[in-house]
Amino acid sequence: MTDTTNIRLDYGSMLAPRLGGRGLDPERLAAAAGRFREIHANVEARREDGTLGFYDLVRRTPMVGQIEAFADGPGQAFENIVVLGIGGSALGTTSLLHALHGRDWNERSAEERDHFPRLFVLDNVDPDTIAPLLDRLNVGATLFNVVSKSGTTAETMAQFLIVRERLRAALGDDEGYRRHLLFTTDPERGVLRRIADDEGIVTLPIPGNVGGRFSVLSAVGLLPAAMVGIDLDALLAGAAAMEERCRTDALLENPAGVFAALQFLAHTEAGAGVHVMMPYSDRLYAMADWFRQIWAESLGKRKNLEGEDVWVGPTPVKALGATDQHSQVQLYIEGPFDKTVTFLAVDEHDHEVAVPPAYAEIDAIAYLGGHTLGELLDAERRATAAALADSGRMNMTIALPRLDAHAVGQLLMLLEIATVYAGGFYGVDPMDQPGVELGKVLTYGLMGRPGSERADIPDPDPRRVLR
Amino acid sequence: MTDTTNIRLDYGSMLAPRLGGRGLDPERLAAAAGRFREIHANVEARREDGTLGFYDLVRRTPMVGQIEAFADGPGQAFENIVVLGIGGSALGTTSLLHALHGRDWNERSAEERDHFPRLFVLDNVDPDTIAPLLDRLNVGATLFNVVSKSGTTAETMAQFLIVRERLRAALGDDEGYRRHLLFTTDPERGVLRRIADDEGIVTLPIPGNVGGRFSVLSAVGLLPAAMVGIDLDALLAGAAAMEERCRTDALLENPAGVFAALQFLAHTEAGAGVHVMMPYSDRLYAMADWFRQIWAESLGKRKNLEGEDVWVGPTPVKALGATDQHSQVQLYIEGPFDKTVTFLAVDEHDHEVAVPPAYAEIDAIAYLGGHTLGELLDAERRATAAALADSGRMNMTIALPRLDAHAVGQLLMLLEIATVYAGGFYGVDPMDQPGVELGKVLTYGLMGRPGSERADIPDPDPRRVLR
Repeated sequence: MTDTTNIRLDYGSMLAPRLGGRGLDPERLAAAAGRFREIHANVEARREDGTLGFYDLVRRTPMVGQIEAFADGPGQAFENIVVLGIGGSALGTTSLLHALHGRDWNERSAEERDHFPRLFVLDNVDPDTIAPLLDRLNVGATLFNVVSKSGTTAETMAQFLIVRERLRAALGDDEGYRRHLLFTTDPERGVLRRIADDEGIVTLPIPGNVGGRFSVLSAVGLLPAAMVGIDLDALLAGAAAMEERCRTDALLENPAGVFAALQFLAHTEAGAGVHVMMPYSDRLYAMADWFRQIWAESLGKRKNLEGEDVWVGPTPVKALGATDQHSQVQLYIEGPFDKTVTFLAVDEHDHEVAVPPAYAEIDAIAYLGGHTLGELLDAERRATAAALADSGRMNMTIALPRLDAHAVGQLLMLLEIATVYAGGFYGVDPMDQPGVELGKVLTYGLMGRPGSERADIPDPDPRRVLR
Repeated sequence: MTDTTNIRLDYGSMLAPRLGGRGLDPERLAAAAGRFREIHANVEARREDGTLGFYDLVRRTPMVGQIEAFADGPGQAFENIVVLGIGGSALGTTSLLHALHGRDWNERSAEERDHFPRLFVLDNVDPDTIAPLLDRLNVGATLFNVVSKSGTTAETMAQFLIVRERLRAALGDDEGYRRHLLFTTDPERGVLRRIADDEGIVTLPIPGNVGGRFSVLSAVGLLPAAMVGIDLDALLAGAAAMEERCRTDALLENPAGVFAALQFLAHTEAGAGVHVMMPYSDRLYAMADWFRQIWAESLGKRKNLEGEDVWVGPTPVKALGATDQHSQVQLYIEGPFDKTVTFLAVDEHDHEVAVPPAYAEIDAIAYLGGHTLGELLDAERRATAAALADSGRMNMTIALPRLDAHAVGQLLMLLEIATVYAGGFYGVDPMDQPGVELGKVLTYGLMGRPGSERADIPDPDPRRVLR
């Protein structure tokens, strides 16, 4: 059963009273309320003029029904679904799969998966990953979901050409192989659109006003989610509930506003430009990776909205609790005061594992008996948060009542809206990514794309190569 | 066949001539040579007095033969090996498995694994991970390798208690279940030592002078590696080759010295305290995670060697090429000049995947045909490195000739030695981790460990919780 309880944001440990004088003065947060009202109004205006399409994804459209119909109908024939996509075409899907089904989904038997297909997300072009996977897959029982808005993403299109040949070799060069392809792409233009129209391949749309990193609740994420049995209604209802909570322009009542303002103030007023997201849940680790994209690519900008060089942007970092207590927390506690840590907590885990009492004579382990692993994980998180606060380190906690689709929908929407607000605070456009163009052009040159200049890449200076 | 070619360090793009004036003045690097000679002498002295035990792990000791004998003998009986360990007891093992066998090892069939066992590393206490895994595993065909130097690590010992009960329930409370346990722990003291001695459980040693994060080439990493058929001789030979290369105290000839000096100077003289490691290889991504521990926990310190408060330490970040070009590179190119990027490159991949020519009439994808995925991945890396350099962003590349045990041994040793040198440059002790104590104590309090004080953790301030 889906829990419709709100997720919570506990941010007391971002503020000076809890941090022994370090951290943010609560007055500074209160003082940001005016600026937030302007930002909120500006965002509402951009919603009205249709440039922030991700907000609209929380409403159930007829397309959602089409996706469910496909997943429940023709989709049932497939043992595997392989997403060919990268960046925003991949991270949201992986986040949904891991959060709601676990990282071990593909290792489970068909029975353990309730006969839903395995789901692979091919988000790289490493031949040492792709060759073994394609050799292992029965392509005749596999749906390949090619996800690219423009159809020009080099990595995805190279994968597509490889998969297309494999399908044709296995299934023949007629209608057969096309039933194993589904394109998620621009509804009107682009290379995949053209191929789909020419060859009669099924497509799903990425709305023109939805950027890749904000597309998880479009067909980009919903189709794979539906294929593995994720409850789209609950996911969208959660997202809608958060959208509703963020309608207010009163900063201290708007969770996305508080999150954005705290991160911005921590960065610009307290020097904390490294923004760690640290779930205490293996299943939410991929969510931190998804956040890493939306936060870095939206806020890391050379130009501000006035066109001046500002070179700004926080550095998002993913960490995993309790694991990274044994890797990163030494630095977080004793290193420079340049970080905030956002914990993701889960109130109630799906499984309960009791630690059996044993070795009553050995104090160093006897205390563990009689507790559950969930209690231990929770104690570790609370202890780490308290240790950070006691050391003057800003941290906050987003708590999910359970790891279900409704809570995950809330979390995704919280962070998407917070990103747009943060763009307002930083004074940059959160929707563009001009900095990746140069690398693309140089790649085209190295790959000999017609019309591209030869890549002007100097050879290594041999005096600076140790071999 | 193992390639014994050296790995290469190409650092021209850390220096001002390539970065249009940004980056480090080569004179500053040259000027660090004197300080490096002192650091090198100090490290040699610490080796002599036996406090840097990880250096000695490159020599093949009789224990390596015992590990191989176990793996080739009794170890053959197991379908699965599960490592119970966290932090330094887990990260090196995962790095070795992924680098040399791929991230999909456990998804492969027994034939595809040449009948070597599956290898699971349980490095967290998330019940939603552990319950499904233990339910799925045939514990009667599984070896549980408990890895903890002291035997007091809460996460690992909780796992041990759970597994021990499962084994006893399945195999009976006699000799049987003990044959499914192997402890890697301190050879003389600690809780696991005591239990092993009392109950006759097989053990392997973690030398007293080898810290957890420097333990990958001890039994901690070698036992699981041997169990899955990794060539220990080649791994140790690679590590020994790098140790040999780093014997010189001439900075510009010592690859670990150059790596450490560049990172330190980039941080302290050019404000680049975020040290990204970005492999262009899925299989090396876990290595970046391993590096993240050794770099953060060794260098992130409140006190310098004189006992003064300095609160120093770079922030290591892991990224994956080409994937994170679509997530992080926007920030790396356009954000603050606060990062270095170290690429890991692989000259020759194990697999070659050709991109078949198709769609000659569509320029935007036709150019991909006729290339291989390895060529595309290589072009993306070179283009990204060049785009960073053209944007004034410091970066360097460590290139491995192939992904084999010899190259991986070199890489591990390069980064371990560099960490110790970096401790010298930063003026901190790279071998301790005092900052994690407070969190442990608070956890003990919350869990009611006898002798621990009640954890003094204040309740959340309800005015600062949005729900």
